[in-house]
Amino acid sequence: MTKNKFIASCPMPDFGFDTITLGHGSGGQLTNKLLEQSVFKLFSNEAIDKQDDGAVLDIHGKTAFSTDSFVVSPIFFPGGNIGELAINGTMNDLAMCGAVPKYISLGLIIEEGLHVSDLWAVLESISAIAETYGVQVVTGDTKVVERGKGDKLFVNTSGIGVMKEGIAMGKEQIRAGDRVLVSGPLATHGMAIMSVRKGLEFETTLESDTQYIGDVSGALLDEFGQKIHFMRDPTRGGAATVLNEMIGGTGFSVELEDNSIPVLPQAASACELLGLDPLYVANEGVFITVVDKEVVENALNLMKSFDKCAKAADIGIISETYPGKVIVRSGLGGKRVVSMPVGEQLPRIC
Amino acid sequence: MTKNKFIASCPMPDFGFDTITLGHGSGGQLTNKLLEQSVFKLFSNEAIDKQDDGAVLDIHGKTAFSTDSFVVSPIFFPGGNIGELAINGTMNDLAMCGAVPKYISLGLIIEEGLHVSDLWAVLESISAIAETYGVQVVTGDTKVVERGKGDKLFVNTSGIGVMKEGIAMGKEQIRAGDRVLVSGPLATHGMAIMSVRKGLEFETTLESDTQYIGDVSGALLDEFGQKIHFMRDPTRGGAATVLNEMIGGTGFSVELEDNSIPVLPQAASACELLGLDPLYVANEGVFITVVDKEVVENALNLMKSFDKCAKAADIGIISETYPGKVIVRSGLGGKRVVSMPVGEQLPRIC
Repeated sequence: MTKNKFIASCPMPDFGFDTITLGHGSGGQLTNKLLEQSVFKLFSNEAIDKQDDGAVLDIHGKTAFSTDSFVVSPIFFPGGNIGELAINGTMNDLAMCGAVPKYISLGLIIEEGLHVSDLWAVLESISAIAETYGVQVVTGDTKVVERGKGDKLFVNTSGIGVMKEGIAMGKEQIRAGDRVLVSGPLATHGMAIMSVRKGLEFETTLESDTQYIGDVSGALLDEFGQKIHFMRDPTRGGAATVLNEMIGGTGFSVELEDNSIPVLPQAASACELLGLDPLYVANEGVFITVVDKEVVENALNLMKSFDKCAKAADIGIISETYPGKVIVRSGLGGKRVVSMPVGEQLPRIC
Repeated sequence: MTKNKFIASCPMPDFGFDTITLGHGSGGQLTNKLLEQSVFKLFSNEAIDKQDDGAVLDIHGKTAFSTDSFVVSPIFFPGGNIGELAINGTMNDLAMCGAVPKYISLGLIIEEGLHVSDLWAVLESISAIAETYGVQVVTGDTKVVERGKGDKLFVNTSGIGVMKEGIAMGKEQIRAGDRVLVSGPLATHGMAIMSVRKGLEFETTLESDTQYIGDVSGALLDEFGQKIHFMRDPTRGGAATVLNEMIGGTGFSVELEDNSIPVLPQAASACELLGLDPLYVANEGVFITVVDKEVVENALNLMKSFDKCAKAADIGIISETYPGKVIVRSGLGGKRVVSMPVGEQLPRIC
């Protein structure tokens, strides 16, 4: 698989070493040499160029703050790598709060022996995505642990975003009659990772959906404001977890139509093969939103106007029939309760 | 050693399990059960109570943003634990930028098999320190990796602080004649960790100096404003690294007086035994500041007025004699260059 779906903007410099050693985490000359040629070169901006212990930023008003650590295995997978996952994931979390991402921090925990070319590919992906969406990586930290005490690379990204005005989202905003929309096919990321781990073969490669979807969610909020009642990206635990967390403890229920839930054919086959329900599988570049019934058609059309959300779908309704529960109706008229998953289906998916 | 130097404010709840499993990182019911009884209970505040993907905060003006990942081994050591280290470290980084810490994010990477009582002790320390200094843990993330793919617990803390006004710090502010002050004995943290790893025995236990020193640095900035030219906490790489990074590329030099550099007797013995120079050993609860010569005496007295900085000392001067270099003069009149360390002296010290 290719390591990087973005066109390499910068050739890898000659670091003078092939693998990361404990010394690169010392804070001394080796650390400086590594960072000068990678992080400080790729992410250059006014804040990070100062190389202080923190970045000084000008921020005014309502601000979203989010953090995520990524431990996905393998760190390169069809459709992406741990770096893309990290920056997209944190930017998406900010977007789901109703914010426009502005600043990212980058914390690396490297296992001794990581190939420096792998680190470079990960950093370059992060840099390309940040640049595409006008986000700055402003501060960071690098640690190295001994062989066998980590697993190649763990990445923490924390992010700061500026909240949009005139929005009101949250589970308390949901009302009966609202529609549940999903921005794209479910289970793609989880099954892409599993297909590599289990060595499954498909006619075409199943690629992770890791992508930033804050441009789409942001357009929805700009256009429909308080008619957008809820938004969340169904990562670990999948759609089942997000919908159960959303509806639990309310007097409402979610009623999904099985036939309306988009799942790519390869992901569906893989799920069937492994006995997994796509509603429980992790996604990375998809969000679920609950919108006022008045705007459902226009909202869906706006979502579909973005290539990355061409397969967006209206998958169900908020009702009062089964308070606190998520129900799926099959095409044949049967229904089943989708409960909160208990433990781990797919460890280290993100 | 005691796990927690703070008085337990909350007894550990009955989690119903003794160790962390992969399922606790799933994002499902097990994750919720773990977090509801620990993170959400200990850190309860308006932002985190919402359990959204990010926190929404009101921030106005110049803001500092910093991140640090902590991989210290062992996670409990004389004088502290990885949680204290993490929150103190990030709060200190913000303070060194000239900010007052306000908000912290907490990212946990847990190795399967960690005792839940160890996690509780770490979280409780973080909670106690946050409460003491009016800082809120507002957002977080928990991942679990398989046994042998991590090392008990890695902690990322990112932080946001409000910048003080009327300050101007940075290497470009340094002038000949300025004095170099240190807020306490050097090498304490590094040697406390090493004493556990190497099984060294002293007459009294050498304890890590992990502590928040932003109250002291903040008081200096409030009192002396732009007369404080530079501030940095000499963590990984020790004082030698901070001073070299500060002076490198300038026309100035740092001239230290060996006799003036405070080092606790046990730390000095341990350094001698292991052949380490205290200037290269990591500190956690100490900062170095460069101040205008006009205010040196008052600044030192202000520092010493805090119990935690009772051993603060004036350790040297900024000169133009050896541009870009750090020099130490011995009591006998000899002098040596203290260069930037190359690689790792003490891996995983923080």
